[in-house]
Amino acid sequence: MLDRFEITRRKLIMTLAAVLVSTGAMWSAWPAQAQDDPLPSWNNGAVKQAILSFVAATSQEGSPDFVPPADRIAAFDQDGTLWVEHPMYSQVIFCLDRVPTLVASKPELKEVEPFKTVLTGDREAIAKLPMADLEKLLEATLTGMTVDDFKAEVQKWLATAKDSRWKRPYTELTYQPMQEVLSYMRTNGYKTYIVTGGGQDFVRVYSEATYGIPPEQVVGTAGGTKFGYDKDGRPILTKEPKLLLNDNDAGKPEGIHLMIGRRPVVAVGNSTGDRQMLEYTTAGEGPRLGMLLLHDDAEREYAYGPAQGLPATKVGTFTQGLYDEATINRWLVISMKKDWKRIFAKGTAN
Amino acid sequence: MLDRFEITRRKLIMTLAAVLVSTGAMWSAWPAQAQDDPLPSWNNGAVKQAILSFVAATSQEGSPDFVPPADRIAAFDQDGTLWVEHPMYSQVIFCLDRVPTLVASKPELKEVEPFKTVLTGDREAIAKLPMADLEKLLEATLTGMTVDDFKAEVQKWLATAKDSRWKRPYTELTYQPMQEVLSYMRTNGYKTYIVTGGGQDFVRVYSEATYGIPPEQVVGTAGGTKFGYDKDGRPILTKEPKLLLNDNDAGKPEGIHLMIGRRPVVAVGNSTGDRQMLEYTTAGEGPRLGMLLLHDDAEREYAYGPAQGLPATKVGTFTQGLYDEATINRWLVISMKKDWKRIFAKGTAN
Repeated sequence: MLDRFEITRRKLIMTLAAVLVSTGAMWSAWPAQAQDDPLPSWNNGAVKQAILSFVAATSQEGSPDFVPPADRIAAFDQDGTLWVEHPMYSQVIFCLDRVPTLVASKPELKEVEPFKTVLTGDREAIAKLPMADLEKLLEATLTGMTVDDFKAEVQKWLATAKDSRWKRPYTELTYQPMQEVLSYMRTNGYKTYIVTGGGQDFVRVYSEATYGIPPEQVVGTAGGTKFGYDKDGRPILTKEPKLLLNDNDAGKPEGIHLMIGRRPVVAVGNSTGDRQMLEYTTAGEGPRLGMLLLHDDAEREYAYGPAQGLPATKVGTFTQGLYDEATINRWLVISMKKDWKRIFAKGTAN
Repeated sequence: MLDRFEITRRKLIMTLAAVLVSTGAMWSAWPAQAQDDPLPSWNNGAVKQAILSFVAATSQEGSPDFVPPADRIAAFDQDGTLWVEHPMYSQVIFCLDRVPTLVASKPELKEVEPFKTVLTGDREAIAKLPMADLEKLLEATLTGMTVDDFKAEVQKWLATAKDSRWKRPYTELTYQPMQEVLSYMRTNGYKTYIVTGGGQDFVRVYSEATYGIPPEQVVGTAGGTKFGYDKDGRPILTKEPKLLLNDNDAGKPEGIHLMIGRRPVVAVGNSTGDRQMLEYTTAGEGPRLGMLLLHDDAEREYAYGPAQGLPATKVGTFTQGLYDEATINRWLVISMKKDWKRIFAKGTAN
């Protein structure tokens, strides 16, 4: 909670920010690591300026673009927007890592595809598995257990698994500049949501500790559960192989309607899977903000598109068509290379 | 937000309440309409005392039963728990009332069942329509339009429709004692949710104005939507006749997991449709509160069971089996007749 003094102080800062923007003051005039800069990991430039002025304009009472607190909903994609998604989505690594344990309890799977290939550890062969096999893998590793057991399995994995490039836990590979945006928005009365193609139950395990986003503010790909009783008569919920929401592409606005029931004011993504979410969000009346993160920094993270001539990818595809749509709709395109002073939180190599 | 003085004052009151409870002080000693009584529409008695002491015990820091704020989730059924459900659920009346408009736009339905019977206005004949016909009616009146158009239709209906017995808008027929519980829980850091068998999109239209519960905290029976574009190329979401969640019986804990992702600490209902929600909620570790409202007041509202020899009903059935389960599990059974000083908000006849 903010005390009266803190609120007054913030209002003054916001007013100053708005004045700087309206007078076209150069952002280089803003002290690079000023104590009061809410986005210190962002380079001063048009994108940082636009974020600051949008949040100020929508949260200051009396502003013509003021948005009532209850309507201040901001939706963030996760993979490739809040944390690293290359070379492969972390949840897929989790599923692959689960296979040895799964086969230990069901030895008959050892000689059956896709488990046989996964057990070889040959990532190239695994990457070539047909979609039907991948679905079998997801079903076997993400369903059939109680929701409590699943949560415990994810927690255990997160505590030990490490990214192959940075040798750090996955939850440490969140983007510091985005963490600052989440935090800055919440300070200004925004309710921040994750709207992810990833599994809702998976992301909810760490969302609060990692992003400050509680489980009920995570919308993701969701399967059904089945209520029943364990052998001692205690009520349990078991994860079923029944897809309720595929929270990608058109599924994102559909998921937002199902789980939130309000159109967001802000939507942030990084791939074609976020297109409809940004379209739906920014088509609403009043001030709206759409943002897309372009991974154009092979040195500090990864570079992929194929927009703007970047290498093509199947994981987090950002097409030139999406880039052009962003220009037409005045969505901000964040250049990881130019707009971000650092990628990860302090204490990490980048 | 509460200032420091207000927090201190409340802490004192809660401490006093806890002391009164622990010393077995008679609740008749509590001034009937005391300025500080958060539940003035409740008669002093075991149920009121249990609610007060549970909320105090779970929200006071240092209490052995303290529950961290983030986990303070309270789930309330709506029909028959927060507002009147007899003689028929309000949403069903909405669907029936929509039929003339629907037939005007699609005259071919005029001679087709169930629309033909509904148009006669003969409530007895309508009540006898087979389930398949009722489903056709719900599909025709609740799907096919955009989510924005549906919201506008519900708003329009709520503004004019009146309950046949009290001649008042439905949203004025919420139970004042329950409104006080909602409010009291929120004051003590609880996040209040509606978990209803009613349509999620229907209840979300009025939940914030009527109960102070925002749309994102309404879990209800939910259908799918389809993302698309209108003739001007604007993104729209259209309500589809595809059931995603039947939020009744086992569907309630399943819906809670889907939409909230945490097990509630408190669950309140009034019928067998709430049984699994109460089981799931109260089976969690630590302090839990389950409550069931028994409609035993034909004079001021309605009397139905068949528990405790009350007349049987198909709308909001409360079986003796559920009553016995409540006793075993120490769920509180609220007697509308004995525990409630008044039924509706001040200014109404009751």
